[in-house]
Amino acid sequence: MKNLVGAAMFAQSGGPTSVINASAAGVFIEALKQEKITAVYGAAHGIRGVLEEDFYDISKEDMEELLLLKNTPSSALGSVRYKLKDAKKDDTDYKRIVEVFKKYNIRYFFYNGGNDSMDTCNKISKYIKKSGWDCNVIGVPKTIDNDLFGTDHCPGFASAAKYIATTIMEVNLDAKVYDTPMVCVIEVMGRNAGWLAASAVLAGHKGLGADLIYLPEIPFSVEKFVSDVKGVCARNNNKCIAVVSEGIHDASGKLICEVLGETGARDSFGHAQLGGVGAQLANLIKNETGYKTRGVELSLMQRCGAHLASKTDVEETFRAGREAVKAACRGTTDKMVVYKRDVDKNGNYKCKYSLVNLKLAANTEKTVPLDWIINDGTYISNEFVDYALPLIQGESKAPLVDGLPRFAKLKKVQAGKK
Amino acid sequence: MKNLVGAAMFAQSGGPTSVINASAAGVFIEALKQEKITAVYGAAHGIRGVLEEDFYDISKEDMEELLLLKNTPSSALGSVRYKLKDAKKDDTDYKRIVEVFKKYNIRYFFYNGGNDSMDTCNKISKYIKKSGWDCNVIGVPKTIDNDLFGTDHCPGFASAAKYIATTIMEVNLDAKVYDTPMVCVIEVMGRNAGWLAASAVLAGHKGLGADLIYLPEIPFSVEKFVSDVKGVCARNNNKCIAVVSEGIHDASGKLICEVLGETGARDSFGHAQLGGVGAQLANLIKNETGYKTRGVELSLMQRCGAHLASKTDVEETFRAGREAVKAACRGTTDKMVVYKRDVDKNGNYKCKYSLVNLKLAANTEKTVPLDWIINDGTYISNEFVDYALPLIQGESKAPLVDGLPRFAKLKKVQAGKK
Repeated sequence: MKNLVGAAMFAQSGGPTSVINASAAGVFIEALKQEKITAVYGAAHGIRGVLEEDFYDISKEDMEELLLLKNTPSSALGSVRYKLKDAKKDDTDYKRIVEVFKKYNIRYFFYNGGNDSMDTCNKISKYIKKSGWDCNVIGVPKTIDNDLFGTDHCPGFASAAKYIATTIMEVNLDAKVYDTPMVCVIEVMGRNAGWLAASAVLAGHKGLGADLIYLPEIPFSVEKFVSDVKGVCARNNNKCIAVVSEGIHDASGKLICEVLGETGARDSFGHAQLGGVGAQLANLIKNETGYKTRGVELSLMQRCGAHLASKTDVEETFRAGREAVKAACRGTTDKMVVYKRDVDKNGNYKCKYSLVNLKLAANTEKTVPLDWIINDGTYISNEFVDYALPLIQGESKAPLVDGLPRFAKLKKVQAGKK
Repeated sequence: MKNLVGAAMFAQSGGPTSVINASAAGVFIEALKQEKITAVYGAAHGIRGVLEEDFYDISKEDMEELLLLKNTPSSALGSVRYKLKDAKKDDTDYKRIVEVFKKYNIRYFFYNGGNDSMDTCNKISKYIKKSGWDCNVIGVPKTIDNDLFGTDHCPGFASAAKYIATTIMEVNLDAKVYDTPMVCVIEVMGRNAGWLAASAVLAGHKGLGADLIYLPEIPFSVEKFVSDVKGVCARNNNKCIAVVSEGIHDASGKLICEVLGETGARDSFGHAQLGGVGAQLANLIKNETGYKTRGVELSLMQRCGAHLASKTDVEETFRAGREAVKAACRGTTDKMVVYKRDVDKNGNYKCKYSLVNLKLAANTEKTVPLDWIINDGTYISNEFVDYALPLIQGESKAPLVDGLPRFAKLKKVQAGKK
């Protein structure tokens, strides 16, 4: 561990969340305070901003705007989905990164994202170490999917869960308003991990939830789904609300949206482009029963609904950014910040901050424990409620001007050569 | 105008809103105070509750829960879409209504809904008058569509507008986060009137709006849409956010969702069942340009998102319910409550309450003035901003318990024979 003096670079990557900028605020505000850090840069569009020398001088920003970042959704610096090649096969990008780091004397590198971004961060960390350039690399976690390994929960998850639970409570009241049959299928994000779909049980905890909840952890049968819905309708005045993860798949691993006829475009990481399975299932039930049905997709709103952010999430996410900088300045490298669940002296939930090896965080997905999935794969146990409820407490949102949120506006003063 | 003493019946009808229960709270709380009113009933599922003697004794409810109704979305009593026949052709339902009114000595009748519901209310009002049964009938307006005649704006509109504008600001930040082309088409409700789609301009007023806004007031050309989007993309780094009303149609009146291949199921009022045109247009642009596109439908959330309600709307809607009862108790009948825009002594927006003949309110739709639709039918003028901005001011939401809203829970003590 060397006592490095130099510039800090921060970049955001992957799908944004409603609180991802709270980490940016934490990193920036802490880095601006640290004596060892001589300049604070924010890269445009993740690692691409580093490769292209497209980054901003954060010292030129007003502190008021940096604080507003805490409640500004989406990635203020811009995000990217760019997969670094295996350095053994093609190290062009890695060489370029080291070149840029040397050129701007970057001694601290913070990369903010989910599994794929931690993979990128891990690769960069390993290459830089090997290259001989001294630079402390710390991953700052982020993902509404809540599927990062080694952390109790992920920054961004709780706000999405709060959005989903609140919205399901409201949709529950709306969808059941008529005296006629109604089946509503609500689709939420989540490819391989069903944490977001599971959040529907928080609404159920309040008596206004979903009747059926399907996670990608359990293979999905279309026939069983139809039978489950008919069963709920028979017991429940011909009304049913079902929540499904976008990533539900059959026993062979084939996505239900593909099974039901959609072509599966793939993104640059090879993931299937999802969406639409809720509408497909609603349509299927309509055809099977003749009932009025509705497919509701929570789409981008569930990850950018900062007006419903959890204060617990916002504050923890901000702190995660600060902890990353503090750890790096203590000489730590090649780690990701994680949350550990603790209790205070009154027995209440408390979050502690720790670190885990980047290698472990990269590409290891944490899914919902199978024994939390109950009722023959159609509901979620109270263990999840106990887990998630402390995380959605409190409200934190942007100040309102003219009845609408006042989000941060960064000056984005160019610091790279671009 | 007779000094009637007897029971009051209130019913909710049509698509619910996030504040429709604020009117219920206003009617109930005011009616419980009035000496002339001997009992207060709430009908289950609109007029059907009257026909089937399925209604509740509101005096049995706790005042705390009645006040919570102000922030509880959807129709707490249940709604209905039931079209009364022309009394000249078949007066079965009307005879039954008078029979029930006589049986329970109902002297005050309040019907809460939009255009179709005011049609129902108007028909009942006229028939009852002819029948010789003295009963004061007052319509209580409600519709996110904002298309009722004779009122400056409609209860429920402002909260939906606030939801739409806030959500578009958040989606704008999210959808533009990558450094790759992105076209996002956001679909909002509105069959014939584009007030909700126009609300997108409030987000634009904050610099985070849509690039293109299409209302059903102007015939929609698919070819022009594609050209408009390409134009925005060329100027704007290959990014475009478009907002469309579900009811956009071509010059012949044919819905675009039908033009683009959807079969048009019809509801019991003969309205086409809409939804999906945003996704269709997003798909079309994807095919035309190869860009990543996303169709986002604000679906039920825009009408039940009580967590984002406008305080101005909530308080005005509550007051509209109280004004309906006061007017009826003064001896008024056959009217609907309306809002008149006024200014206070400081020149600030102020709402005044008045009445309009039911006949005028029934089935007359108020659309967006054509001269507010600018840029060759693709944007909305500042006149709309001046009109709508005062209406979305302030916040009013249910108290939170465990981080989630605590909505009203009515006991629903049966008062009819059912």
